[in-house]
Amino acid sequence: MQLEIYDSTLREGEQSATVTFTWEDKLKIIEELDRLGVSCIEAGMLTSARDLDFIRQAANLPLEHSSLSVFGSTRRVGETAEESDGLALLARAPVSIACIFGKSWGYQVERVLRTTKEENLSMIRDSVAFLKSAGKRVIFDAEHFFDGYSDDTEYALSVLRTAWEAGADTVVLCDTNGGMLPDVIGMATAAAADAAREMKEQTGHPCHVGIHCHNDMGMAEACSVSAVLSGAVHVQGTISGIGERCGNANLNTLIPVLQLKLGFACIGERLSLLTDTARRINEYANRVFDEREPFVGGYAFTHKAGTHIDGVLKAPRSFEHIAPEAVGNLRNMILSSLSGRSAMVEKMARILPHLDRESPEVAAALEAVREKEAAGYSYDDAEASLLLVIREALGMRRQYFQVPHFKVMTDEGSGKEEDMRSTAMIKVSVGGAEELCAAEGIGPVNAMDKALRQALGRFYPAIDQMHLTDFKVRVIGGGATAAVVRVVIESTDGVAVWRTVGVSPDIIRASWQALRDSVDYMLDLRSSGKVT
Amino acid sequence: MQLEIYDSTLREGEQSATVTFTWEDKLKIIEELDRLGVSCIEAGMLTSARDLDFIRQAANLPLEHSSLSVFGSTRRVGETAEESDGLALLARAPVSIACIFGKSWGYQVERVLRTTKEENLSMIRDSVAFLKSAGKRVIFDAEHFFDGYSDDTEYALSVLRTAWEAGADTVVLCDTNGGMLPDVIGMATAAAADAAREMKEQTGHPCHVGIHCHNDMGMAEACSVSAVLSGAVHVQGTISGIGERCGNANLNTLIPVLQLKLGFACIGERLSLLTDTARRINEYANRVFDEREPFVGGYAFTHKAGTHIDGVLKAPRSFEHIAPEAVGNLRNMILSSLSGRSAMVEKMARILPHLDRESPEVAAALEAVREKEAAGYSYDDAEASLLLVIREALGMRRQYFQVPHFKVMTDEGSGKEEDMRSTAMIKVSVGGAEELCAAEGIGPVNAMDKALRQALGRFYPAIDQMHLTDFKVRVIGGGATAAVVRVVIESTDGVAVWRTVGVSPDIIRASWQALRDSVDYMLDLRSSGKVT
Repeated sequence: MQLEIYDSTLREGEQSATVTFTWEDKLKIIEELDRLGVSCIEAGMLTSARDLDFIRQAANLPLEHSSLSVFGSTRRVGETAEESDGLALLARAPVSIACIFGKSWGYQVERVLRTTKEENLSMIRDSVAFLKSAGKRVIFDAEHFFDGYSDDTEYALSVLRTAWEAGADTVVLCDTNGGMLPDVIGMATAAAADAAREMKEQTGHPCHVGIHCHNDMGMAEACSVSAVLSGAVHVQGTISGIGERCGNANLNTLIPVLQLKLGFACIGERLSLLTDTARRINEYANRVFDEREPFVGGYAFTHKAGTHIDGVLKAPRSFEHIAPEAVGNLRNMILSSLSGRSAMVEKMARILPHLDRESPEVAAALEAVREKEAAGYSYDDAEASLLLVIREALGMRRQYFQVPHFKVMTDEGSGKEEDMRSTAMIKVSVGGAEELCAAEGIGPVNAMDKALRQALGRFYPAIDQMHLTDFKVRVIGGGATAAVVRVVIESTDGVAVWRTVGVSPDIIRASWQALRDSVDYMLDLRSSGKVT
Repeated sequence: MQLEIYDSTLREGEQSATVTFTWEDKLKIIEELDRLGVSCIEAGMLTSARDLDFIRQAANLPLEHSSLSVFGSTRRVGETAEESDGLALLARAPVSIACIFGKSWGYQVERVLRTTKEENLSMIRDSVAFLKSAGKRVIFDAEHFFDGYSDDTEYALSVLRTAWEAGADTVVLCDTNGGMLPDVIGMATAAAADAAREMKEQTGHPCHVGIHCHNDMGMAEACSVSAVLSGAVHVQGTISGIGERCGNANLNTLIPVLQLKLGFACIGERLSLLTDTARRINEYANRVFDEREPFVGGYAFTHKAGTHIDGVLKAPRSFEHIAPEAVGNLRNMILSSLSGRSAMVEKMARILPHLDRESPEVAAALEAVREKEAAGYSYDDAEASLLLVIREALGMRRQYFQVPHFKVMTDEGSGKEEDMRSTAMIKVSVGGAEELCAAEGIGPVNAMDKALRQALGRFYPAIDQMHLTDFKVRVIGGGATAAVVRVVIESTDGVAVWRTVGVSPDIIRASWQALRDSVDYMLDLRSSGKVT
């Protein structure tokens, strides 16, 4: 049976305490989710004209697999649907789906909305009908459904019926507080699914049940599965469970469980893109990826105990509940010298084709990468640096320039913070010839980048074509300002884009490493035509 | 009904890819767990005389609530129990409980042990009987029980019966691969509980069922709960779920779910120690605490969306499934431009009590916060800076010092990247008196922090008590090195911990703002006793 996977990373994810997306991040995330093949992507909450501007940009993306949705609420107490600014924005959004939330628990209606249960039903009815007549497919999120169902079953179900009757094709049961156990979710969902069947007969149009769980009891995925087994056909969640408080149901876990363990159709063979997609979206969210995440984490199929390694080599089912490749992940053995060879052969093919798992070059490269990783480097998002490390390990990396003198400083020209400025002074030496350049910049990295490229331009004119396009910093170890930072910079020469990495307790030094790698990559591999 | 909580942090936790404990760490963790009141603490795996030395130390701790357990395996194929070095070590350990694991799945017996199913039963029988006759309480961990149960139900149950018959009072059903769904766990546990009742009648001694789950499907806690609801009375897990691959069942989640939601007796009123205990044990394990952890995480009761904040103030049950105090945690509201007046009144109560939603001070503070947010500031994780912004908006913020001169530089002393060093030179002026200090540091922020505190120490001795404990950088806008960065630093004076924020396209300037805020917070609010 086909399930509808509804991703809410861009809305629920942004309600997470530490996540803020730029428009550019959001557009990249939408493209990733479309490539993964989820059915619906919630592009965001619509509360202002500025939000609508973003939705217009998103709607221009050429999506292949996913439909976009916008999120808002029902009309307010005491206004008509036509008077609601929020509903008007949703109606004007150039996307096919509008998802709105409303109350389904009397306690909430009376204590928070401060209105009557009847007015609440009217608010839902009017709002759904308004959006439906504006040509939208309407999804209704029944907030606090499970609390409402426990408190007053009949009222909670009447909320659902009202939404279906008014034209919502899918009503989503929300465990808003995340406080419900899977059994309770299953029973209440079964009752909702019964009501859906009745309403379908009565109205003659599709009436579906969806599920939306939070992780306050660490059970968001188990609760979602329980709902699906009880009749829900639409599943909401976020990548890595990013969301307010303890997060939402984690789609990285839910999709493989539903598809591999229970046989539901979700994203088909695109499941093998899951690990990469999850990592890239966490990168855009500037989150430290949790390597313990089920299915997609770096440790999910990593074996440390000797007996486990022995067991998994004799019989993989011993300590692996699925084949890691099914979700695009890899088996990893901390104590094994065999781990990673195939992956390395694949990586090295770009610069040295015709190697195989037994080639000594592969072993040497793997060893070099392991050493770097032990020092905190990570090449997940910095393949250009990875290729340089491999070339260095094989004695193939050329020194294009030396830096006999380097200085970067920041001071307040006038004694005012507003006038703080950074200056870099860099001397390079190429085959005995020296060039000293100084440059001012917005911050030290900007200044270093300018000075370095200026100094090298005389020797390597190709440098003029390149410039930095992104700069990311992540603290990878605890402990005050001496914590180790990882800097990733993105560069382009107008044709290709590449990323390089630097690691150091000193942010200037880490940035400098990444900058030098970027220039080396340009000179060694790009302009020489060794990579395209 | 009373459940037995069995903590395995010291054994399973150490199998996690990134955790290694010293003996001292382990002793401190045992004391923490005893204070929390868990029934059993697994002190470690016993495979050598050195392990036994540690167990002797642990056994000398004066524990109040917990019993210690040691872990090992059954005898090997082809030896007698008396010949087994492992069993001899367990028998000699000066603790009351011995927990041993054995196979309960034919596939494992034949493929990994490479012996017969009958010999496997003998290994279990002999080993349990040997430890029992050595005076131990014996717990038997049935590895891969659920896989075995699905494959060959009768054999899997005969493994359990063998252990009970030989004298084990508790047989623990292990989902070793973490690949089972809660429903499957529940059904198989019910069958095991039936077998336990029969065996109790037959043998006349206690026969209990326990549960041990892994998190490879993100469902370790849901599976454990399902087992308890089906008759398991002994629950194994680890603090924060630390363990191999995706980890083990998380006791920080399981204990409050079982006790608060389902009414089982676990650790009684000591539950209010849970948050602190969990944090301290993560500290000993040198792990970055996951603030999204259910119940004990810093974000577990943190509200950001305006509608949620409004709701929780009107009616806590709206967005809190339990009272945070029950597990020793706190409610927290993140102020953002969306969160509105109610949240601001609550926040301001720390420095200005007796305000209400209509106070002009509240509107002024909100306006100031909105302006800062528009410039990229975020106070999600920097409440100290927020309080300073509020004081500034109300004309209450004092200037403790001026900085007529500021310079920070990084250079390579010897022309080698390895020798890169950062130096800061800062002149402060306090009431006409000036002080110039310079300091070297690991990176520019470390150098600035040292120089600033040195310079101010003469005027404000309280500064000596504070130091930086964490430093975070986030790029909040795209676009090369001119992207805007947000720096959050964490400081402490040994009693309180506070966080401050700086935002700028220049990372040095952003760090400098956060540093100045931290010092201001210390001088303005901490040392004056305005906040505690």
